[in-house]
Amino acid sequence: MAVDLTKYISSYKDFPKKGILFRDISPLIENPDAFREATNRLAAFAKKEHANLIAAPEARGFIVGSPVAYKLGIGFVPARKKGKLPTATVSASYGLEYGKSTLYMEKKAIKPGDRVVILDDLLATGGTYSATAKLVKQLKGNVVGAGFIIELSALKGRNKIGDVDTMSLIKY
Amino acid sequence: MAVDLTKYISSYKDFPKKGILFRDISPLIENPDAFREATNRLAAFAKKEHANLIAAPEARGFIVGSPVAYKLGIGFVPARKKGKLPTATVSASYGLEYGKSTLYMEKKAIKPGDRVVILDDLLATGGTYSATAKLVKQLKGNVVGAGFIIELSALKGRNKIGDVDTMSLIKY
Repeated sequence: MAVDLTKYISSYKDFPKKGILFRDISPLIENPDAFREATNRLAAFAKKEHANLIAAPEARGFIVGSPVAYKLGIGFVPARKKGKLPTATVSASYGLEYGKSTLYMEKKAIKPGDRVVILDDLLATGGTYSATAKLVKQLKGNVVGAGFIIELSALKGRNKIGDVDTMSLIKY
Repeated sequence: MAVDLTKYISSYKDFPKKGILFRDISPLIENPDAFREATNRLAAFAKKEHANLIAAPEARGFIVGSPVAYKLGIGFVPARKKGKLPTATVSASYGLEYGKSTLYMEKKAIKPGDRVVILDDLLATGGTYSATAKLVKQLKGNVVGAGFIIELSALKGRNKIGDVDTMSLIKY
């Protein structure tokens, strides 16, 4: 019996700043059935794309991506904020729905030709996704899929994803 | 055949600042066999403690804790940095091996009597663990276990954990 994931998303006006309607996955990850359903569906997507690595941006992306990597028996590569990685990195900057940031990835984390699915909790304007994809591509990995729990369709993040297969479990 | 997890930990001198020997779990989470072995062992520990929730501190704790919650079919509660949670929170401050920080948890994330296992990548001085445990206890949850991939024994983090069952997969 499929779980209705929409029941496990809360919405908050003006968070983290005025004008933003924040869609919160906390109830979903706190509920075993919803968390399992979301993870299994994203894992099925990544498997279909023959991913051999999952990449995900700090920090909520870790909650989403790490169990998918575990489920599929493949590796997990974090895209991290500044100052967190001890080895040589590549970097990519991006504008968020709110604010601006830079993500970093270890050079040794991706080998040329790796098939990488990028996962995150939310697709908004696509800025975080684009930065993560740039990191993978700088290391000559192939981004073969993009998966999200929530997609905010009005913000047109899919335009930034281009022709990479994309899956979102819930659309607003 | 057991995987020798120690092979998948890298060590870096003077990171993130002088005098710190940084133990890095990146090779472990990038390697499917090592990541699976670590997750399965922490999941077996949490199951033995009859946990109904996994709590973990941002950000590496999410990589460790989220797949354990998935594997056991229980919920996942993040302890987050400032400004990330839209609902009412409790907070706890702590000193790190380097620096100082505050963690936050949603009040609604824990119900009185919940059996919570706290997971993280690393037990150093125990500051992050203690703050996470304080959050759970403020919400009247029972901390029934503490699990880590790495324990830096010389820093005596176990002294801060007290009589809560504790497991670390690798000791230095």
